[in-house]
Amino acid sequence: MINLVLLGSGNVATHLYKALSASQRVKVIQVYNHASGSLQPFKKETPVTTSFSEIMEADIYLLALKDDVIPQVSEKLSKKQGLVVHTSGAVALNGLLPNRRRGVFYPLQTFSKEKEVNYSEIPFCLEANDEEDLDLLKSLARDISGKAYEISSQQRKKLHLSAVFVCNFVNHMYSIGEKICRDNKIPFEILQPLIKETAEKIKTASPREMQTGPAIRGDQSTIDAHLDLLVSSENKQIYQLLTSAIQTFHGKKL
Amino acid sequence: MINLVLLGSGNVATHLYKALSASQRVKVIQVYNHASGSLQPFKKETPVTTSFSEIMEADIYLLALKDDVIPQVSEKLSKKQGLVVHTSGAVALNGLLPNRRRGVFYPLQTFSKEKEVNYSEIPFCLEANDEEDLDLLKSLARDISGKAYEISSQQRKKLHLSAVFVCNFVNHMYSIGEKICRDNKIPFEILQPLIKETAEKIKTASPREMQTGPAIRGDQSTIDAHLDLLVSSENKQIYQLLTSAIQTFHGKKL
Repeated sequence: MINLVLLGSGNVATHLYKALSASQRVKVIQVYNHASGSLQPFKKETPVTTSFSEIMEADIYLLALKDDVIPQVSEKLSKKQGLVVHTSGAVALNGLLPNRRRGVFYPLQTFSKEKEVNYSEIPFCLEANDEEDLDLLKSLARDISGKAYEISSQQRKKLHLSAVFVCNFVNHMYSIGEKICRDNKIPFEILQPLIKETAEKIKTASPREMQTGPAIRGDQSTIDAHLDLLVSSENKQIYQLLTSAIQTFHGKKL
Repeated sequence: MINLVLLGSGNVATHLYKALSASQRVKVIQVYNHASGSLQPFKKETPVTTSFSEIMEADIYLLALKDDVIPQVSEKLSKKQGLVVHTSGAVALNGLLPNRRRGVFYPLQTFSKEKEVNYSEIPFCLEANDEEDLDLLKSLARDISGKAYEISSQQRKKLHLSAVFVCNFVNHMYSIGEKICRDNKIPFEILQPLIKETAEKIKTASPREMQTGPAIRGDQSTIDAHLDLLVSSENKQIYQLLTSAIQTFHGKKL
């Protein structure tokens, strides 16, 4: 049995808590947060604390915290024997500098509080200083997901950057599409099958090979017509920049 | 039985041909294309022609052609009694001006020659001058898909514009993500569950409510770190513009 103390109570912490609680091999023995209010949902099942001095001895301290507080919280755990691990895509392993045994347990997924997550499909990106600690993190990841990847701090930064493009920026494209539909009394659901197919296509083929649309076709009359239709100057700018980027990327630029 | 002549032999024509051939209520009686080579795949099952003078009498003439040739081809069909229909997202119903009975049968999906399409999930956007012709198109759409929407020329233009954002531009975001992964020896498959979840989230909630990431969090240190990591100046520009667009859209701009 792996004894684990969870630090944090946000989206990632909440989702990991649920996944870990369902595991037979892990026991969440305590949840820490600096504010007691957000500990309410955990209180019924698990001891909680708002004080570093009360943090229990554990095999793993899992810091599901905002990036900027990771260094100061890890500092507070410098005397602990267990493995201190953060869940951030952007913070290096060395962000846990004061800890003797340190690691990274980064779930590459977008978490919303309201929406259930299928843990079996979350890839965990793992890193540790020590082979044995890495094995411990692997067994933790496999216990809740089945997908574990060894990813260095350097790679993880790049992965996190890629995630901004394929998730956050993609979602903004969806927002623009929805806004155009709403403004023209078109049900957004018409676009759902297209959105689904666009995401599914690239499971088996490179997105590079799957590019379609007026930009890659060099269909200037459609591009001009679209720019005329766009009301927001910001959306016009996005349309122009992405059209030109697609053409450069595919070697179509004149 | 609806007798139909298909004009065109590209991706959309090929996919519609397959869907229509599977229907019990529609018979594709002829396929036209200006070049005989591309008619080869249809030849075994259906009469083909490269000559307008040989085009048969039919209930529907379905023009699955490039936008810019739709007017001239529809001109050639001006003496026909049947309903002349195009499949374009960008051409107005009036693009078929010479035809007495005209309509639009726009399948809102991204078609790749290599990939099979689930027709039952394609929404068809329909338009016609005449109520009876609209009913004919509705029955055609329902026969192959089950999803039919009445969409005006004005709305269809906007829908096509939205589709560029949620499909073509989204796919370019995937391409950038894949390139960053490849350049850093990270398997792109790690991002697949995130891509899938991002697309699925917005089936039940507005994308506006689902926005996550450093831009909406106002996490400037991550934004700066990402801009430092980006090698391509075009990707830097995209990152900057979309970050600022997300902040404006969500009222976070200073």
